[in-house]
Amino acid sequence: MNPKALHKISYGLYAIAARKGDRINGQIANTVFQITSKPPTLAVSINKENYTHELIKDSRSFVVNVLDRETGMVFIGRFGFKCGRDIDKFEGIKYRLSLLGNPILEENSIAFLEVRVEKEVDVGTHTIFIGEVVDADIVSDDEPMTYAYYHMVKKGRAPKAAPTYIEE
Amino acid sequence: MNPKALHKISYGLYAIAARKGDRINGQIANTVFQITSKPPTLAVSINKENYTHELIKDSRSFVVNVLDRETGMVFIGRFGFKCGRDIDKFEGIKYRLSLLGNPILEENSIAFLEVRVEKEVDVGTHTIFIGEVVDADIVSDDEPMTYAYYHMVKKGRAPKAAPTYIEE
Repeated sequence: MNPKALHKISYGLYAIAARKGDRINGQIANTVFQITSKPPTLAVSINKENYTHELIKDSRSFVVNVLDRETGMVFIGRFGFKCGRDIDKFEGIKYRLSLLGNPILEENSIAFLEVRVEKEVDVGTHTIFIGEVVDADIVSDDEPMTYAYYHMVKKGRAPKAAPTYIEE
Repeated sequence: MNPKALHKISYGLYAIAARKGDRINGQIANTVFQITSKPPTLAVSINKENYTHELIKDSRSFVVNVLDRETGMVFIGRFGFKCGRDIDKFEGIKYRLSLLGNPILEENSIAFLEVRVEKEVDVGTHTIFIGEVVDADIVSDDEPMTYAYYHMVKKGRAPKAAPTYIEE
């Protein structure tokens, strides 16, 4: 078995954001996908150790912010490689709160989709959160960041908690 | 809500193949994603009405064939817009059988991943099949087909049974 075949699966790159009480947080994820068209339903795989996991468990909803292809590495580093238990990731970042109270990015994002969680599937290290899209909009006509572009052009890497992390 | 925001999610394009007794079949899908890294676990969303759904239910396994970016529209039309109950989609197609007996494409594919199904999640019109990757390899260094490339360059469309179908 050649585990590098897993790298041939294509993904986008997203900032998944949620809220618990007065705390908001977000994290980078690539494993977002639509699972039904009627009603529009999304799924995302989140590591159980991540702070955003705790927030989604509490808020039962989250926002998928679709990252702009030109998003800088400082932003991705902050949302993808730091922990929201230690820092306020949204400090100094432009955002607004959705109807359900989750952060919608107003920078580095070309679209958002808000999901109300209806199902959770325990898959060991991660939980798949599944739910209906209750709000969504396109905010820019720029290109979305893809995982391939992030790796090839931006020379980005995957953190250990990512579903797609492979030990070298 | 703007449903076109759903189009900003990035995907690849795959031929999902399975077997039931002496019948083999495959279908095009874009909603394949990795959900954990240890062990490597994949998920795919398949429409309950599709013949491949019946086969995966029976074989409890499937092969994800990662399509080459240059895959022709005749091949995609055959696997994506025809029903395996009516025709033998693999007739005249180069393939071999995996250890678990599922078809691995030997044309139009750059990699394959074989999955043993461990969980099924009922999500209305579709089932999410989840399982561990038991075999995988890269067969070509060519680029994978992405859903964006399929729509923009190949002018492809989504069939009604696709999770990402949006009525125009």
